[in-house]
Amino acid sequence: MLLKECLTHIRTQLDNVVDFWLKHSHDTVHGGFFTCLGKDGHVYDEMKYVWLQGRQVWMYCRLYRTMGRFCKPEILEAAKTGGEFLRKNARVLGSSNPWKCAFCLTRDGRAVKVQRSIFSECFYIMAMDELSRVTDDKDLQLEAEQMMEQIIYWVRVDSSGLGRPSLPGDVPTNSMAVPMMLLCLVQQLTEGREEAVTQKYKELGNWCVEQILQHIQRGGTAILENVSVNGEELPGCQGRLQNPGHALEAGWFLLQYSAMWGDDNLQKTAINKFVELPYQNGWDKKHGGLFYFLDVDHHCPTQLEWNMKLWWPHCEALIAFLMAYSQTKKPELLERFYQIYEYTFKHFPDNDSGEWYGYLTQEGKVALDFKGGPFKGFFHVPRSLFMCECILTDLLAKHN
Amino acid sequence: MLLKECLTHIRTQLDNVVDFWLKHSHDTVHGGFFTCLGKDGHVYDEMKYVWLQGRQVWMYCRLYRTMGRFCKPEILEAAKTGGEFLRKNARVLGSSNPWKCAFCLTRDGRAVKVQRSIFSECFYIMAMDELSRVTDDKDLQLEAEQMMEQIIYWVRVDSSGLGRPSLPGDVPTNSMAVPMMLLCLVQQLTEGREEAVTQKYKELGNWCVEQILQHIQRGGTAILENVSVNGEELPGCQGRLQNPGHALEAGWFLLQYSAMWGDDNLQKTAINKFVELPYQNGWDKKHGGLFYFLDVDHHCPTQLEWNMKLWWPHCEALIAFLMAYSQTKKPELLERFYQIYEYTFKHFPDNDSGEWYGYLTQEGKVALDFKGGPFKGFFHVPRSLFMCECILTDLLAKHN
Repeated sequence: MLLKECLTHIRTQLDNVVDFWLKHSHDTVHGGFFTCLGKDGHVYDEMKYVWLQGRQVWMYCRLYRTMGRFCKPEILEAAKTGGEFLRKNARVLGSSNPWKCAFCLTRDGRAVKVQRSIFSECFYIMAMDELSRVTDDKDLQLEAEQMMEQIIYWVRVDSSGLGRPSLPGDVPTNSMAVPMMLLCLVQQLTEGREEAVTQKYKELGNWCVEQILQHIQRGGTAILENVSVNGEELPGCQGRLQNPGHALEAGWFLLQYSAMWGDDNLQKTAINKFVELPYQNGWDKKHGGLFYFLDVDHHCPTQLEWNMKLWWPHCEALIAFLMAYSQTKKPELLERFYQIYEYTFKHFPDNDSGEWYGYLTQEGKVALDFKGGPFKGFFHVPRSLFMCECILTDLLAKHN
Repeated sequence: MLLKECLTHIRTQLDNVVDFWLKHSHDTVHGGFFTCLGKDGHVYDEMKYVWLQGRQVWMYCRLYRTMGRFCKPEILEAAKTGGEFLRKNARVLGSSNPWKCAFCLTRDGRAVKVQRSIFSECFYIMAMDELSRVTDDKDLQLEAEQMMEQIIYWVRVDSSGLGRPSLPGDVPTNSMAVPMMLLCLVQQLTEGREEAVTQKYKELGNWCVEQILQHIQRGGTAILENVSVNGEELPGCQGRLQNPGHALEAGWFLLQYSAMWGDDNLQKTAINKFVELPYQNGWDKKHGGLFYFLDVDHHCPTQLEWNMKLWWPHCEALIAFLMAYSQTKKPELLERFYQIYEYTFKHFPDNDSGEWYGYLTQEGKVALDFKGGPFKGFFHVPRSLFMCECILTDLLAKHN
């Protein structure tokens, strides 16, 4: 296959996916987005998940800001309405901390559930910062940075404000999601901004990288999802857990960071350990596709969905391999990209009703046929298509 | 097939399953039970789940107390050691409520996680009450009854002590697990005890039945897992959720209760609505077996495991149909029992290494090959075999 064909296909896919969400997900009554969308786009549940609200605002803004064909009033308007819905409703009234956000809201914005973690707040920040870039509203940027301070405090100083009771057997762990998410936010908050902002978050960025690298375990042969705060392997299932899609996502976060700072060693580690290794350990040799969870000692994971093929690890793998190739031009990385590309586009897109299926059986059969749900919104698919389109365009421009 | 063959097979299975757990699950160092047991019985994680600790104590005691061949010192000793482990470690030290139990503990008994629900406490009660019956230790019975008072307070008066924040969008619901669990405890605490105890819990038992019957919805054509506190259907996925295995378990709880009080109407409702209906709605016509979750409007459930075939719904279905048959002698109920029996014994038992697999794909292939995990312990399989053996023995005795 040629890069050019690939680009054309990915552009078409991105247009299709954007259309799907523009058409089906907007709540014109209460603002915000429906994300529980069935096979044909019908709303099968009105609950509004804060992660997905924030991500959709972010994605609309990013497309509007950086890709000419999406610089349309309809998209900006939807992003703004989503941002307003979040600002009005996401923070939990009467909570002991004014920055704590809900995990899910009723259609009209009343809090239903609060998680004792930082992720709702992280996606809130992504939304506000990116929205501030397209609207030039400095208040939003300020709000994003203030919430960021709170998150840093929860992660690095004292997490008791998140509401989890302190228990004698519950040892603090370094769960890869946390430094990954913070690294992503550092890149969000600093990208294209003045030197002072970059410097403000520099130490945090380095700390995140260090924390992520602690997950290289077993003499460099595996990325483990949870390690001790000293970077040692934890006992039991929790310690042996591998999440290949997550490791691949960390891989391209690290590649972006290494490119930003010109860090060749980090680039090499990112490719060897966070791109190639999770593929080697995580690819299903029999049926193709990436497993969701694996146990490094080949015990059966306890997650019932361990052997399912989910859309998002494949989205992350596409970005990771294409970015690794674009930075190094090593042909084996492009070959791998094509292999994942082939599996992904053969299995996930729904050519009849649009968008992608999210959840396949190990054998690649559609197991859940909805297009959006509590954890699948307008994010991984369009982000992957967007990133791949950018990288491919860049590669082809340099090539010509 | 003859009932007699069936009985012989079930006896053998029960012996096999008891042997497996006696051999592999006892922690002779710290007390209590390992429940994360691999295909061949090896311990792949040392975490101790309070639900499963309580259930194993209960099951050992019940077997010891009521089935001659299990009245062995080894089983009593294991139950006592498990009970001691629970009494020493299950309650969360320094918690705001002295009755709150942890969800999971380290091998040596330190709390790792606390759930904001009542179930750890419920299985603690089952363990203590049944243990008091075999040891004649009245303190245990008293402790069980005291904890029961606390649970009743959480469920019927004020749940804020469980630690869930009160949120404007989080409307109180009647989730079927709660009245089912309480009804099970009422039967546990009153069985064979003096009239005063029976009377003490009579109103609660009736309330539980009433709460369970509220789950008959859609003009009597479906059992829905979650309804409003007024017995109305809830909006969205939560409201449309069906859990056929759970409905079947409720079915035989209601049958037991109707037999105890001689309530023919309740018996009829139990059989029509909680035994036959969940089978009709929940049986996979194509591949056989009971689905785990279904949406009453045929949307795709959002639970990734919705179409998997789990061991425990089949365990409950066996008890429900056999009990319904034994109470009514209607041949169609026995036929249904044989159908479920055939699927169950063809797919779940591992004839090589013993015990049952717990998690199959929709097509009936083993998806997770461990014998015990965070939610699969020494409970559903032996309870089902035990109950079926009792019912079959009784049927055959009356027949001769």
